[in-house]
Amino acid sequence: MTALKKLTTSIEQRKSYLCVGLDLDQRKIPNGYRDSIKNMCKFALRIVDATKDIVAAYKPNLAFYEALGPDGLFLLRQIISRIPEDIPVIIDGKRGDIGNTAQFYAKACYDIYRADWVTLNPYMGYDSIRPFLEVKDKGVFILCLTSNPGARDFQRMEINNKPIYLHVANKVEYWNKDNNCGLVVGATHPEQLESVRRAAASMPILIPGVGAQGGDLEAAIVNGTDSFRKPALINVSRSVLYASEGEDFDQAARQAVEKINNQITGLQNQHANA
Amino acid sequence: MTALKKLTTSIEQRKSYLCVGLDLDQRKIPNGYRDSIKNMCKFALRIVDATKDIVAAYKPNLAFYEALGPDGLFLLRQIISRIPEDIPVIIDGKRGDIGNTAQFYAKACYDIYRADWVTLNPYMGYDSIRPFLEVKDKGVFILCLTSNPGARDFQRMEINNKPIYLHVANKVEYWNKDNNCGLVVGATHPEQLESVRRAAASMPILIPGVGAQGGDLEAAIVNGTDSFRKPALINVSRSVLYASEGEDFDQAARQAVEKINNQITGLQNQHANA
Repeated sequence: MTALKKLTTSIEQRKSYLCVGLDLDQRKIPNGYRDSIKNMCKFALRIVDATKDIVAAYKPNLAFYEALGPDGLFLLRQIISRIPEDIPVIIDGKRGDIGNTAQFYAKACYDIYRADWVTLNPYMGYDSIRPFLEVKDKGVFILCLTSNPGARDFQRMEINNKPIYLHVANKVEYWNKDNNCGLVVGATHPEQLESVRRAAASMPILIPGVGAQGGDLEAAIVNGTDSFRKPALINVSRSVLYASEGEDFDQAARQAVEKINNQITGLQNQHANA
Repeated sequence: MTALKKLTTSIEQRKSYLCVGLDLDQRKIPNGYRDSIKNMCKFALRIVDATKDIVAAYKPNLAFYEALGPDGLFLLRQIISRIPEDIPVIIDGKRGDIGNTAQFYAKACYDIYRADWVTLNPYMGYDSIRPFLEVKDKGVFILCLTSNPGARDFQRMEINNKPIYLHVANKVEYWNKDNNCGLVVGATHPEQLESVRRAAASMPILIPGVGAQGGDLEAAIVNGTDSFRKPALINVSRSVLYASEGEDFDQAARQAVEKINNQITGLQNQHANA
């Protein structure tokens, strides 16, 4: 099964557009689970177990695991092995390097961590992306317009009245010969998300920035999916993982997911009836 | 000592502008050293031992270690611990993520791998760089114009007759309040290197692309240092690490370094006499 098919199937079967970012931050994990890698693992496995039937995908960001040293990567593998086979795993590393080196990043993401999708940075151009694209049953989400304030520094600069992020969207659409590309667009740019959606044909869009970063859920899902006609994932991390500071953190995480799922279903019904 | 002072001191004391890229590729390591991490470690330690008095810096690229799984990161730490304290270690990961996440990458690079410098990708803008800049005694080399063919896809696009890579150089110069920024410019763009050198004031430039990628050494060092007046590093990886397929690989690596050092010293003498 291709990565795209696995993704759209998971969205349909679990009736969820949510991707849970598994970003383990020791400062935020409930007391009793943050003091050792073993306990952080217990925390993460309980989050996965409590949400795996109602989310479309999981996205561990490599930074949080690398900061724990080599043992953090054993932790990551253990967490990934708990995720059911039919749920896409997105390895969020935002990698980008020359072709020869990118091959090694592809190996790390696909072979060591069994990623279905990876996130990549476009700055170094096609040959930095190609080694990933050549693994045709896997997918890549390429940074287009990111959710953070720094998106203004370069991504929104304009060339011939067209911002760089749209040049990126157009190039990625051109690279998408095997239907294994997607784009990352922050929910903090709702209007721009609409224009990327138009440029992106039927590529999936990964949308971070709802929640802690302040993006609006309705604009994100409606614009990101072109009113529920195209695939998109809304990423949530902190608001789900750290929904409770107590022993009930897993059930609180589940409730946080259910709440957003219900909001999205409500919007979907509105659009179906419109 | 600041990262910049450590770098310029190392260049002076070892009379070398070379940075050796410690990119361990099992397909290229001599027979007998490629079949296990333990043997790869022996190979790398012998390369370090044979060159440490005649090179200015070492630059392990994280991709090659990540592709070996968690054990690859133990290997990396072992190799780094063999590098003398007064030689700068550049962790080449080309990271870039939102501020909250970038903090964790900074922790990984500086605390887990005792990097003096890191390479970063500018696409996500200032808040993705800031957590690194805040560690004031460490330095960052930010991708400006990379050595690979894909540099054409976005970096050389022009905004108001100024290519994006020069916008990056200007912004980085502006961010360089604490003298801890540098730029990465490929030797495959000798003329553009000259214009970046002008935009970069006294920032150090890290120059890959000499050797396997075809960049010209003379243009790289003369343009990169503004005729030996500013700091720069010429990175070499494959041509040094894999200079011999035999048991003499370490001495062959040393000879390859000496040859380039001598070429650069010759050019330096020419410029001193000109």
